[in-house]
Amino acid sequence: MSLLTVGTVAFDDIETPFGRAENVVGGACTYIALAASYFVRGIRVVAVVGGDFPKKELKYLEKRGVDLEGLQIKKNEKSFFWAGRYHDDMNGRDTLVTDLNVLADFDPILPETYRHSEYIMLGNLTPAVQLRVLDQLLSKPKLVVLDTMNFWMDNALEDLKKVLKRVDVITINDEEARQLSGERSLLKAAKIIHTMGPKYIVIKKGEHGAILFGEDQVFYAPALLLPQVTDPTGAGDTFAGGFVGYLCKTGDVSMNGMKKAIVFGSAMASFCVERFSTEGLKNLKSRDISVRVRQFAQMVKF
Amino acid sequence: MSLLTVGTVAFDDIETPFGRAENVVGGACTYIALAASYFVRGIRVVAVVGGDFPKKELKYLEKRGVDLEGLQIKKNEKSFFWAGRYHDDMNGRDTLVTDLNVLADFDPILPETYRHSEYIMLGNLTPAVQLRVLDQLLSKPKLVVLDTMNFWMDNALEDLKKVLKRVDVITINDEEARQLSGERSLLKAAKIIHTMGPKYIVIKKGEHGAILFGEDQVFYAPALLLPQVTDPTGAGDTFAGGFVGYLCKTGDVSMNGMKKAIVFGSAMASFCVERFSTEGLKNLKSRDISVRVRQFAQMVKF
Repeated sequence: MSLLTVGTVAFDDIETPFGRAENVVGGACTYIALAASYFVRGIRVVAVVGGDFPKKELKYLEKRGVDLEGLQIKKNEKSFFWAGRYHDDMNGRDTLVTDLNVLADFDPILPETYRHSEYIMLGNLTPAVQLRVLDQLLSKPKLVVLDTMNFWMDNALEDLKKVLKRVDVITINDEEARQLSGERSLLKAAKIIHTMGPKYIVIKKGEHGAILFGEDQVFYAPALLLPQVTDPTGAGDTFAGGFVGYLCKTGDVSMNGMKKAIVFGSAMASFCVERFSTEGLKNLKSRDISVRVRQFAQMVKF
Repeated sequence: MSLLTVGTVAFDDIETPFGRAENVVGGACTYIALAASYFVRGIRVVAVVGGDFPKKELKYLEKRGVDLEGLQIKKNEKSFFWAGRYHDDMNGRDTLVTDLNVLADFDPILPETYRHSEYIMLGNLTPAVQLRVLDQLLSKPKLVVLDTMNFWMDNALEDLKKVLKRVDVITINDEEARQLSGERSLLKAAKIIHTMGPKYIVIKKGEHGAILFGEDQVFYAPALLLPQVTDPTGAGDTFAGGFVGYLCKTGDVSMNGMKKAIVFGSAMASFCVERFSTEGLKNLKSRDISVRVRQFAQMVKF
């Protein structure tokens, strides 16, 4: 099974109540690829970085089996940069800086080898770029998953609606689901978003877990309780990467398969938030992941 | 099995984005007794109302098998009154009026017949009043459940700590658990609250469900998703009433018994929020309740 992902590969400055990390590796695509790399080899990356992006980090991704043929490196430009500060309760954050740099005129070009990918993960990015990726595919993928955010609902709603028509699964947070649908009840919101295209709607609620709507069923996966949450950056991307990586590994894209994938995605996100940047996603053992998945099963059993 | 509950029986003015209800019946004890009445007969009420409280409402409680021998009626005084307005997202609310009236000098007196009660539900109220109830018991109860709130942590912490030493289960919301423990992680917060007395800690998270900590286990029950939430008033009390009512009915106060009780409490709360005041808790059939409990089981199965 082949998995292609598009998204940002970036530098972040992050400040949380537990400390700060400067000029660390971030970006949706980075988190997605790392999380998915625990389930599948050869994840195909479509992204862009500047000449400033550390070779060491790219080597690490390759070591984890990530395929970087579709990564554009603009030697004389700078990588996308984001700086943010989390509130004391960690549920909110303020964006301090967004420097698009190489992302400003990013044209995602799929290498020939990528054009028959079966699983597509459209990481959070301009909907026009997500569309450009879908347009270059030469065969119908088995599954398209879209992650997006309120910024695109405010600024590129028409493009977003075009992408939505072509995706199977959307992952957004609860407030975004309410904004996109105009409905306060998540049950009603999911029904409306379903009519926009996606057969499955995944609502990410951070520390409150995630809800999957599909095939007239609802599945709720609580978030694991952790002694320490250090940095929520990338948790949603990591969740999406674990989710799509698990689906790609098993090939089971039924509602039952998706439920399990949600649990694996949540387990990956729990590692992500324990440390700054991508540190929590490095050097995990498959046993570490299966222990957390078992914790999920125990937590909801009655 | 016998169940005794203490708490407020009151009038409420409620304003939500979906409408308003004026001078309707409310109060922690009312919601607790109504919810528990679906599991046990003869719930013993310790509370106070003024001469203004409608006889019809008391008759309805009696019809549901609630024992009002311990309800004091102060003919020439007014009942406790609370007015509140919910925010647009329904997760927050402002208190507009609190008229203590009869509650100002409430001395909870247990009739002789109440003094050997096995299950005690201390509804949200001055900790000193909760203590007075425990002091009048002539035999050690099988289970004491305490509901409280941030107001008592701010204004009567020492008394609250005294009650905590004598309870088996505490139910509070997530922010209150953080305030009481001084810990942001709910996992750590529960451990600290455990050292204050309660063997079991139930954290109510409203639309995000409830978490039970006990016997070195964690159990997470999501809230049911509803097409319409009309009025969250009394949801926490209803949850507590369903929880303790179910425990009293089964007599199983182990961690496994508590898990099931949490699910039944959540099911009762889902009926409560669908309509204003106590309307959602009237005339339910046991089939209505078991349908919702089954929905819970399905929602977390993977």
